[in-house]
Amino acid sequence: MKDERILLAHGSGGKLSHDLVARVMQPAFANPALDLMHDGARVEAAGAKLAFTTDSYVVKPLFFAGGDIGKLAVCGTVNDLAVSGATPLYLSAGFIIEEGFPVADLRRIVASMRAAAEEAGVSVVTGDTKVVEKGAVDGIYINTAGIGAVIAGTDISPLNARPGQDIILNGPIGDHAVAVMAGRHGLSLPASVASDCAPLAGMIKAVLAAVPQVAVLRDPTRGGLATTLNEIAAQAGVGIMVDEAAIPVRPEVQAVCDILGFDPLYLANEGKAIIFVESPYSEEVITVMRAHPYGREARVIGRVTPAPAGQVGLRTGIGGVRLLDMLVGDQLPRIC
Amino acid sequence: MKDERILLAHGSGGKLSHDLVARVMQPAFANPALDLMHDGARVEAAGAKLAFTTDSYVVKPLFFAGGDIGKLAVCGTVNDLAVSGATPLYLSAGFIIEEGFPVADLRRIVASMRAAAEEAGVSVVTGDTKVVEKGAVDGIYINTAGIGAVIAGTDISPLNARPGQDIILNGPIGDHAVAVMAGRHGLSLPASVASDCAPLAGMIKAVLAAVPQVAVLRDPTRGGLATTLNEIAAQAGVGIMVDEAAIPVRPEVQAVCDILGFDPLYLANEGKAIIFVESPYSEEVITVMRAHPYGREARVIGRVTPAPAGQVGLRTGIGGVRLLDMLVGDQLPRIC
Repeated sequence: MKDERILLAHGSGGKLSHDLVARVMQPAFANPALDLMHDGARVEAAGAKLAFTTDSYVVKPLFFAGGDIGKLAVCGTVNDLAVSGATPLYLSAGFIIEEGFPVADLRRIVASMRAAAEEAGVSVVTGDTKVVEKGAVDGIYINTAGIGAVIAGTDISPLNARPGQDIILNGPIGDHAVAVMAGRHGLSLPASVASDCAPLAGMIKAVLAAVPQVAVLRDPTRGGLATTLNEIAAQAGVGIMVDEAAIPVRPEVQAVCDILGFDPLYLANEGKAIIFVESPYSEEVITVMRAHPYGREARVIGRVTPAPAGQVGLRTGIGGVRLLDMLVGDQLPRIC
Repeated sequence: MKDERILLAHGSGGKLSHDLVARVMQPAFANPALDLMHDGARVEAAGAKLAFTTDSYVVKPLFFAGGDIGKLAVCGTVNDLAVSGATPLYLSAGFIIEEGFPVADLRRIVASMRAAAEEAGVSVVTGDTKVVEKGAVDGIYINTAGIGAVIAGTDISPLNARPGQDIILNGPIGDHAVAVMAGRHGLSLPASVASDCAPLAGMIKAVLAAVPQVAVLRDPTRGGLATTLNEIAAQAGVGIMVDEAAIPVRPEVQAVCDILGFDPLYLANEGKAIIFVESPYSEEVITVMRAHPYGREARVIGRVTPAPAGQVGLRTGIGGVRLLDMLVGDQLPRIC
């Protein structure tokens, strides 16, 4: 391992990402708040219960159907706070820009961040801009970190996953990855194929206000729905069974996947959330979600099972069961 | 301005950086917390008074005498919180890594972050790793954001600068920039020339505990001492006069500057703080600083004057006065 080098798949959000965190990051930074239980850390500062999270955005191309790197940088971090059971409040923004980058593009990106921040009800309160020589970065990268206030009376954790709970998803998967890929390769796709990139804090807040019993919240970004479900199954030591027929995928997105050999279950989403809740509450959760623009297609896609612990199964259209593993390798680098 | 492009100097911390923030960032993100009064924003979350700040680190080379990108990424953000009058508590860490980067170097960087975080008393609680293709980034960039708790009973702001106050500096300037430049160009310098990169939170906390009357705190990083003093003079609408003979510069650092045409007053520091305080308190501030390893050479370097408002003067060794402007252009890109 002496000459081991970083691979693209170490940034995929899948198996190698987990491996790198477990081998290099976790041992160095070990502390009670740094665990893999949430998309954001839960910390206490001056008596306040906060969620704190960060993500860097390196998406290529910078502009794509349905969004751009600025919208993504705000929504991604807002959503990580929201699925930590927190109300997003403040964002930081760190820009690394290549010398020669058009100021007009920067203005467009910043305007897009502002619009997303306004919709999400957060303020960008601190920032930093570094400029590097031509070739030392690919256009522009943006890091955002976010602070949220943990919503009182809720207890969100993957460790709360229990057999019998329903798994609810708010809409079709794969849109973001396919839109970005189409933009990257100049594919011409129907206008209906656009990134789902959206701030989910409002929808999630409404769900938690109506049903504080929600047990698990996650956003299936890098690694896709399959990887996120695997993380929860492994952390909680439960099984998960999802229904292929219940998981919405747009026909146009499925067609692109069929041609290019992608599996939508492993593609990144930027406006999706999964919610685990005891069955009796499912209907109310779905009603609240459907009342929200980002939850119109909310539905139960599966259920937590007692066994096999740590495994995710997919009941296929023809009645068989396929084992869904975590993402290995990387189908599509630089998707966010 | 339609075809205007980003220049390296937009990231210098000097005039063009201010200009970019004022023209592009401020109008988009306008909100009460986003001002240029602090190195970090002051925000309130769930009843807690917090400081929140971010910086991306793109230093080249990654390893240099006295530090590396990891130590810098922790100390820089810790110091921004400390000079905001806050106790640093939590950091996020966002890594953008080039495919092929040696895992051994990553381990070294992460170990260095851990050591600096331990010394500073902060925890790295959340993180993110993105990997980009070979050539899409120059080795590794790190973003850190930090949360601190504002220290009660203090009121730190450049707006508090008042004529008659003393300006105190904790040690020699220019070490960091010269050490990084020597590393970049393979210059062989005496071992005494090393980056001053250090977490200053402990020293500053001790000063504020002893003398809560401290009015202004800043760390002269990008743009150097001259730029930082200009920022304060402009924000508070006061004059500043500093004494060339009182500002410590190591002879070895001065020699490098003389040969290469750099002015140490404009070089970045990563372990320096300037403190404005009413004269009667200066002695106590200096005593507390000198008792701390990072303040051994603390001394008064100048004074706030009523006029000329917004200007910084340097009393030279031969008794004349030279006007010190903010950094224009960039002497040395990618210094942090």
